[in-house]
Amino acid sequence: MRQQRIDKVQVSLRARGLDAMLITEPHNRRYLSGYTPADHGIQESSGVLLIPKKGRPWLLTDSRFELQAKEEAQGFTVELYRKGLTVLLKTLLPKLAVRRLAFESHYFLHSAVGRLEKMLGKSIELTPLIGLVEGMRAVKSEKEIQLIKQSVLRNEQVFQQVHGTVAPGMSEIDIALALERVMRQQGAERPSFDTIVAFGSNAAKPHAVPSNRVLKKDELVLIDMGLVLEGYCSDMTRTFFCGEPDRMFLDRLRTVRKAQLAAVKVIRAGAVSRDVDQAARQVITDAGYGRCFGHGLGHGVGLAVHETPSLSARNRKQLKAGMIVTIEPGIYFPGWGGIRLENMAVVREDGCELLNEDTTGLDL
Amino acid sequence: MRQQRIDKVQVSLRARGLDAMLITEPHNRRYLSGYTPADHGIQESSGVLLIPKKGRPWLLTDSRFELQAKEEAQGFTVELYRKGLTVLLKTLLPKLAVRRLAFESHYFLHSAVGRLEKMLGKSIELTPLIGLVEGMRAVKSEKEIQLIKQSVLRNEQVFQQVHGTVAPGMSEIDIALALERVMRQQGAERPSFDTIVAFGSNAAKPHAVPSNRVLKKDELVLIDMGLVLEGYCSDMTRTFFCGEPDRMFLDRLRTVRKAQLAAVKVIRAGAVSRDVDQAARQVITDAGYGRCFGHGLGHGVGLAVHETPSLSARNRKQLKAGMIVTIEPGIYFPGWGGIRLENMAVVREDGCELLNEDTTGLDL
Repeated sequence: MRQQRIDKVQVSLRARGLDAMLITEPHNRRYLSGYTPADHGIQESSGVLLIPKKGRPWLLTDSRFELQAKEEAQGFTVELYRKGLTVLLKTLLPKLAVRRLAFESHYFLHSAVGRLEKMLGKSIELTPLIGLVEGMRAVKSEKEIQLIKQSVLRNEQVFQQVHGTVAPGMSEIDIALALERVMRQQGAERPSFDTIVAFGSNAAKPHAVPSNRVLKKDELVLIDMGLVLEGYCSDMTRTFFCGEPDRMFLDRLRTVRKAQLAAVKVIRAGAVSRDVDQAARQVITDAGYGRCFGHGLGHGVGLAVHETPSLSARNRKQLKAGMIVTIEPGIYFPGWGGIRLENMAVVREDGCELLNEDTTGLDL
Repeated sequence: MRQQRIDKVQVSLRARGLDAMLITEPHNRRYLSGYTPADHGIQESSGVLLIPKKGRPWLLTDSRFELQAKEEAQGFTVELYRKGLTVLLKTLLPKLAVRRLAFESHYFLHSAVGRLEKMLGKSIELTPLIGLVEGMRAVKSEKEIQLIKQSVLRNEQVFQQVHGTVAPGMSEIDIALALERVMRQQGAERPSFDTIVAFGSNAAKPHAVPSNRVLKKDELVLIDMGLVLEGYCSDMTRTFFCGEPDRMFLDRLRTVRKAQLAAVKVIRAGAVSRDVDQAARQVITDAGYGRCFGHGLGHGVGLAVHETPSLSARNRKQLKAGMIVTIEPGIYFPGWGGIRLENMAVVREDGCELLNEDTTGLDL
């Protein structure tokens, strides 16, 4: 599997007349090598792949990661840098006869490119190459789809276990902590993003951060959560009512759900991303809430929780079979709160296949 | 406080003949504005500051963060981008008569600079500016030192509470989860990095990831942990023995502790960072473990858990009073394990002031 991915990169490099490529984006690195560490931000990389146009690839890292690199990155030569990546490349690239070196300019700092250019001099030409591995990652294999499905189902189990305990008197942080604890107990590597739990008016922020606010009866609860299982992410949002939902909540919830189903109906290979976004947006606009839906409809999910493709008004590309996307319309009202519902689906030739089984509060 | 920081940036801009500066680095953003969201990686920013050379600064973000931005970033004008930052800047910069725009090239993607250059055209000159705010952040005010001290003490309380429960049969993940749960219960915003818990030979990896490995009697336990309290980070490592420590453990632990104390002795304003690293390294080399200490001695801590200055053989700069650094020598032996001890200290004119009070297992 990994070897086929490396082969594909190498074919692309040769077709472009490039001698090698640096892979700095952490998910791309894991996708191609199996090497799992997360980075502490772009300024603290735990390693870089160097894929030559032919032959055995390299994993360049520092001594902290030596053992893990050798255990995980099968088929890679692990080389340590003691004085930084740039210094190592200055000696390694000439040995490999690299003259034209591609780099991921979408995951390479402007200042780092400057340093590299200065160190390597004119004998090596640096060429930005954007999205080569992301393009491969966007279309999932059936094995990856199964892994993501497992991640989605595990995430739902965690949600359902904690949902059953939600009651007045609990704080947003209490619930978020409980969710993240159960995730880890259920074998997740980690949450795929900081869990969002927001009550009432706090839910008017699409990216609310859990606070000490205590749940009262007759408040809405928005939970947006995901986990990482064997590297693959899930992402789900549910909005429900603590107590008997009032008419305004129900009306707004039904609008969002209708928007979600409208999008599901048009997702298939060949559908244009912006049209899918528009299908959901139209329902919300028709209900008079157009200005309350300020974000895009969804995004790809895989090794990264946000990846290609985006479902938004700005994306004119067609969906491909094997892509996995979230469908998450939401409407937000300062002072009142917000409602968002999010499921995940695989794009198929003739439609889409929902990965979720949980139906909590979707069809009231 | 924040206004003084903005003033300082504006004075620097005017002195350099720059009209404005984009602040993209999330900790710099929080330092100058009080706006707290974390970014989901460099590719998913939750906002950017635009500091003009004079007058009111701007916070540019998207609708998801509108409420939080307005609540938190006092004194800033919040402007939303619907079609991305680049498009907004194209209209906003000419209005502000910006001709020369500085950007943080150490936290700006190479590809994003390219897009910005293309969109802005020749009428606006982009100028990389590295480390302006980081330089300000490196030297802490007494108020910041107090906040960091609180973070350190809270972290120690968490450690001590969980340390008392460590027993054979627990897994690395069990202990890591317990630590992170207690952190949140004790009011931490989050861990300042993924908590490291490693038993026995797993501790040979300086960046070990907690696994399901179960603790046995007569194994060493390495815990590296930190939390974020009111934005400020702590970072501490302890290595202790489950059972009666054997001679080899004691010998190695004492070497590491001696190295740590040697560094503490030479830290003061004006000391050269590499000399501090060398003071600890010499002790370890003299004990015959020189090759087992593959990382630098320490790093600055503040809003970021890793920040300026680094204590390493590569840093020839002098320490300044008010800097806060970790002192964390470590030695690692594949197959056996590793020992690292980490405390934090403030650099003062005439020495250094330890922030830690916990002494668990330091002086056996």
